[in-house]
Amino acid sequence: MAEPGEGAIDLRSDTVTRPDRAMRAAMERAEVADNVIDTDPTMAVLERRIAVLLGMPAGLWMPSGTMANLVALMVHLQRGDRFLAPRDVHILADELGGAAWLAGGMPEPMPHDGGPGRPSPSAVRSACPPTGTAYNELRTTLLCLENTHNAAGGAVTSPDEHERLVMAARDRGLLVHLDGARLWNAAVALGVAPSALTTGVDSVQVCLSKGLGAPVGSVLAGNEEFIAAGRRVRQMLGGGVRQGGVLAAAGLVALDRIDELVEDHGKARTLASGLARLGWAVNRPETNIVLATVPSVPVMLTKLARLGILASEIAGQVRFVTHRDITHSGIEDVLVRISAGIAVAEPVEEIGFALEG
Amino acid sequence: MAEPGEGAIDLRSDTVTRPDRAMRAAMERAEVADNVIDTDPTMAVLERRIAVLLGMPAGLWMPSGTMANLVALMVHLQRGDRFLAPRDVHILADELGGAAWLAGGMPEPMPHDGGPGRPSPSAVRSACPPTGTAYNELRTTLLCLENTHNAAGGAVTSPDEHERLVMAARDRGLLVHLDGARLWNAAVALGVAPSALTTGVDSVQVCLSKGLGAPVGSVLAGNEEFIAAGRRVRQMLGGGVRQGGVLAAAGLVALDRIDELVEDHGKARTLASGLARLGWAVNRPETNIVLATVPSVPVMLTKLARLGILASEIAGQVRFVTHRDITHSGIEDVLVRISAGIAVAEPVEEIGFALEG
Amino acid sequence: MAEPGEGAIDLRSDTVTRPDRAMRAAMERAEVADNVIDTDPTMAVLERRIAVLLGMPAGLWMPSGTMANLVALMVHLQRGDRFLAPRDVHILADELGGAAWLAGGMPEPMPHDGGPGRPSPSAVRSACPPTGTAYNELRTTLLCLENTHNAAGGAVTSPDEHERLVMAARDRGLLVHLDGARLWNAAVALGVAPSALTTGVDSVQVCLSKGLGAPVGSVLAGNEEFIAAGRRVRQMLGGGVRQGGVLAAAGLVALDRIDELVEDHGKARTLASGLARLGWAVNRPETNIVLATVPSVPVMLTKLARLGILASEIAGQVRFVTHRDITHSGIEDVLVRISAGIAVAEPVEEIGFALEG
Amino acid sequence: MAEPGEGAIDLRSDTVTRPDRAMRAAMERAEVADNVIDTDPTMAVLERRIAVLLGMPAGLWMPSGTMANLVALMVHLQRGDRFLAPRDVHILADELGGAAWLAGGMPEPMPHDGGPGRPSPSAVRSACPPTGTAYNELRTTLLCLENTHNAAGGAVTSPDEHERLVMAARDRGLLVHLDGARLWNAAVALGVAPSALTTGVDSVQVCLSKGLGAPVGSVLAGNEEFIAAGRRVRQMLGGGVRQGGVLAAAGLVALDRIDELVEDHGKARTLASGLARLGWAVNRPETNIVLATVPSVPVMLTKLARLGILASEIAGQVRFVTHRDITHSGIEDVLVRISAGIAVAEPVEEIGFALEG
Repeated sequence: MAEPGEGAIDLRSDTVTRPDRAMRAAMERAEVADNVIDTDPTMAVLERRIAVLLGMPAGLWMPSGTMANLVALMVHLQRGDRFLAPRDVHILADELGGAAWLAGGMPEPMPHDGGPGRPSPSAVRSACPPTGTAYNELRTTLLCLENTHNAAGGAVTSPDEHERLVMAARDRGLLVHLDGARLWNAAVALGVAPSALTTGVDSVQVCLSKGLGAPVGSVLAGNEEFIAAGRRVRQMLGGGVRQGGVLAAAGLVALDRIDELVEDHGKARTLASGLARLGWAVNRPETNIVLATVPSVPVMLTKLARLGILASEIAGQVRFVTHRDITHSGIEDVLVRISAGIAVAEPVEEIGFALEG
Repeated sequence: MAEPGEGAIDLRSDTVTRPDRAMRAAMERAEVADNVIDTDPTMAVLERRIAVLLGMPAGLWMPSGTMANLVALMVHLQRGDRFLAPRDVHILADELGGAAWLAGGMPEPMPHDGGPGRPSPSAVRSACPPTGTAYNELRTTLLCLENTHNAAGGAVTSPDEHERLVMAARDRGLLVHLDGARLWNAAVALGVAPSALTTGVDSVQVCLSKGLGAPVGSVLAGNEEFIAAGRRVRQMLGGGVRQGGVLAAAGLVALDRIDELVEDHGKARTLASGLARLGWAVNRPETNIVLATVPSVPVMLTKLARLGILASEIAGQVRFVTHRDITHSGIEDVLVRISAGIAVAEPVEEIGFALEG
Repeated sequence: MAEPGEGAIDLRSDTVTRPDRAMRAAMERAEVADNVIDTDPTMAVLERRIAVLLGMPAGLWMPSGTMANLVALMVHLQRGDRFLAPRDVHILADELGGAAWLAGGMPEPMPHDGGPGRPSPSAVRSACPPTGTAYNELRTTLLCLENTHNAAGGAVTSPDEHERLVMAARDRGLLVHLDGARLWNAAVALGVAPSALTTGVDSVQVCLSKGLGAPVGSVLAGNEEFIAAGRRVRQMLGGGVRQGGVLAAAGLVALDRIDELVEDHGKARTLASGLARLGWAVNRPETNIVLATVPSVPVMLTKLARLGILASEIAGQVRFVTHRDITHSGIEDVLVRISAGIAVAEPVEEIGFALEG
Repeated sequence: MAEPGEGAIDLRSDTVTRPDRAMRAAMERAEVADNVIDTDPTMAVLERRIAVLLGMPAGLWMPSGTMANLVALMVHLQRGDRFLAPRDVHILADELGGAAWLAGGMPEPMPHDGGPGRPSPSAVRSACPPTGTAYNELRTTLLCLENTHNAAGGAVTSPDEHERLVMAARDRGLLVHLDGARLWNAAVALGVAPSALTTGVDSVQVCLSKGLGAPVGSVLAGNEEFIAAGRRVRQMLGGGVRQGGVLAAAGLVALDRIDELVEDHGKARTLASGLARLGWAVNRPETNIVLATVPSVPVMLTKLARLGILASEIAGQVRFVTHRDITHSGIEDVLVRISAGIAVAEPVEEIGFALEG
């Protein structure tokens, strides 16, 4: 919890975005109620509006994407059930083992052989051969997907690819949960409705506190029975709240800004191509995440911080995330500082990457 | 989650209080940051201010009192450890079994032989005889207290009694957690500082979203090591949030209103003595909770609801909770409606109570 | 794990009984098989024979009564479910908190207001008022009984009383598990078939390694669906074994000796009346357990050990358990040694007990 | 739990081996005691003798290898800790998810890039980059190894390779648990003492009920502190038993037969080379496991069963396990039956394997 330096350009994550004037005004006038014993009206509107956007029957507010994912796993999994998930997804790598410890699930990390951030449908099928179900056999019951896939550089899964994965899961009797923390970005990048990316899933969660800039909050969506079970688990975990409408009001404002994410994607492309011109080995960003392969991530993060640029580490790479609180000129500034402050040849010469950007 | 009728006088709980103008204004201008990867400045101020009020080294924001209690149990208890708690406390009766399922603790409900809402120190000692600790013996490691005690009608434990209980716990090597969801009420009723009621505890949680009227939020306090462990567990459970300062700002306003709880206590006394005059069997409220013994709780709640009065059930009794969103005249109105609409003799004749009120 | 002295008379528990010649001969010639991937024939015979004795559809071998109880709880309980059990039963006091930690259940210890070792049916009913089942309410789903009740001095619950408790549980929608570790003793004491004591239960476990003298083994009984679920949980816990027929063969011999438990009960009566004559405050044993109230249990256990008599502590009393490896004359010897070595008046004068024996 | 056909040659597993005359005689005369409240002398001898064989400070009897592994994980792992294990090890694939559900561990399956059945030391290192340990980062704390590796065809890890893996684990601060269910086979195949294969581990478990032919039983070994913690967890799980010396006596006989495993390895080589001559794609067995790659495992198992040959499925292959209850001529018989009953060309032509045998 080191504090970022004053005046630094913060590209560590889109979670650092702050609520703006319109959101705060909405919070100031939100209708609210005790959402444990009654229904907070603003939370209910947010849940319904998101459920519609996602093409799901119902929604349930959550204080974080981590709790939304955890509740989904706790409802879907029984003691010791195995679940499949692409290697390096947030549920596996960034939620402190709650999937195992709290939800009791045995993860099976899948290769990204179907494209960045996802297994192929045949890998899903072969991970669950249709053998008999003896009493003493591990059961596999769930496929978890993540769209966009954070650790794969914000990679997008298209509706077609998504459907093929869901069909493979169905072939094997698996439920499907979609971690859509940045599903909005995927929809915008693809030019499709968010609901086009949830076909056939049993549950999906979306975050309001990343690129959309709202404070505190995610929504988990599924059918009525799932949501009823999830509401109980949320209460157990301590995620049931009073007067959360003050937060939901900001979330409703956020939903009006989904289309603006296209700006963040443009900034990411600018950053990536600029870095590539400077000799960096970077991905070709589909959304708002730029990944750079460098000889030493900690060393590079330190160099960048000295230039007033904050980035983060993910899966052994440097990650830059563009977001609404950084302008296009801020990105240009980043490139200027790096150009001036970090020797071009360094990352390239040391490990000999082909340019990707 | 039935919605309360329009215009009803809502005495189900002080959790129904809504943030007022000053809180909303504070939310509107709060300084915020990503409190997962950095420190939200307003949350930090709230945590520090509450830690000071409670006389504890450090504090940690939580989305609910349920999560605050759960995190405390998860940090304090190891697999299968037994813990003592007065019968009917919130942790035992109202948190969906998280104490067992998530924290892995074996509860031992204690009698209220030390006064309403608490065991006697000797009951604590005799529940943990100082026998050897064979490898195959259940271990008892924690005493949980609750002040005020909700199910005992908002009963207050005084600093002296609290200290004797803590000493008994120490004699037996037990840690002590205090559920202070309504600790503010206890302090006001006793005319002492809140810190006078936390002597010797290892952890304490206080709520901002009950009588103080803030939306969403509690704070768990303890020493630095406990808070560090709690921060990790909070993150696992999904209670780590971004830009929670918007909520913490309302919490800071709430802290300026602790003294105003004296009003709620007066309203409770007015309600209890009025009911007693009407022949009801009620407690003598020490804080803001009035309990009435009636032949049938569901029948009485229905009768009250028809008169536009909302109450709730707790431990087999009707509970009325006074709070800042009900005025003194609202309480008078309740008494008028009951006087007119519910036959005086009913509860008395049917079960023959002595008046307590 | 201190070893008992050579030549001591061991009345700590009937679990110290050793398999005799007939059991060992049966083990020597038992037909066996891999009971994980096939069915061990001798284990199957034992399971079937015990199921019939108990009037249950099916049985499942377990390495211990603790695992049998744990599996029953794990199958019956869901996350955080509350269950009722008489205060001081083995599941609550002597299984290291597995009920909470592994089965995730919230125990509610019940008073022995229905007689020694059991709650009254009305206590069961009032512990589960038929209120609505809101999503945020703790659920109570199970009643656990123990017959004979160990900590209540081997107290017996009769078929009538058992049925009334089961009916109270059914009224409230509860499942019923019976810990019958010493059910054989209860049946013999009452002169009824064991199946007369299992009416209406969903599961029951009986031990072979206590008064019956077999090594290693208990059997859990229930309906086919319950047993199928239990088999899976047993395997998870590591209780599935290969060639367990060598143990089951001894268990089959043990079943031929149920009637001989009447001898142990006679020895207990002899011991209790002898102790009473010496001025001790003891229970009137219904089966094979004698409890004595003394000023200091550890002091008394030490005095007894110096006389070559081994006893144990349970629920704050000295416990003597008679069993097949101690003869009637051994009991006489115990009385002689105590008479000579421990001053008669001691326990009486110090705490002024009325004689019960 | 289908029963194997009468007269079938059972190569499904070495777990089907039955205790012989000598073992049964030892059981018949074993000294025993209650191993929960005292120490069973024969169990103690077995535990000590195995600890010495393994070069470990202490041992603890377990009813199964599954429980031995589970107890090790439960002692080593804290809530949500990540652990590394080679893909397809028993702990991951065959223990019903207890690693996650009961031990709360997040498994990371490792590639077999260091040789059959094991990761390379560098894969271990790169799976645990020495980054900072932020409060919100998943922790990796344990490496699990398996020697021999069952699913890799009984593959052996040599002392040198083992040590390099342990050193890699130590570099990253990991504990090491070794599942040595068939460690005896590895030692015999390598011609080394079993203790040469446990260098540097924190715990190791070995089974007596596989190739050595004893009924029921495994032993978990580690240092005194680990064993003390394990004894408590074993009791919680219900693995503490009375008079288990009857089983341990058979285990002691089994230990005298470790060298005889060389026969099983010879039988496996005979089977593998015979199958290869018949055109099968088989591994080159290092110990007692032959794996065959076939177009359809279920189809082939059915064909074999019709010929009176029982095999099993593992990781998508047909597995034959040789053992002491099958003679050399039994193996010749298997080859004769297959030669007569299953068309040579089938497996080869259909999927075009290169011969490995």
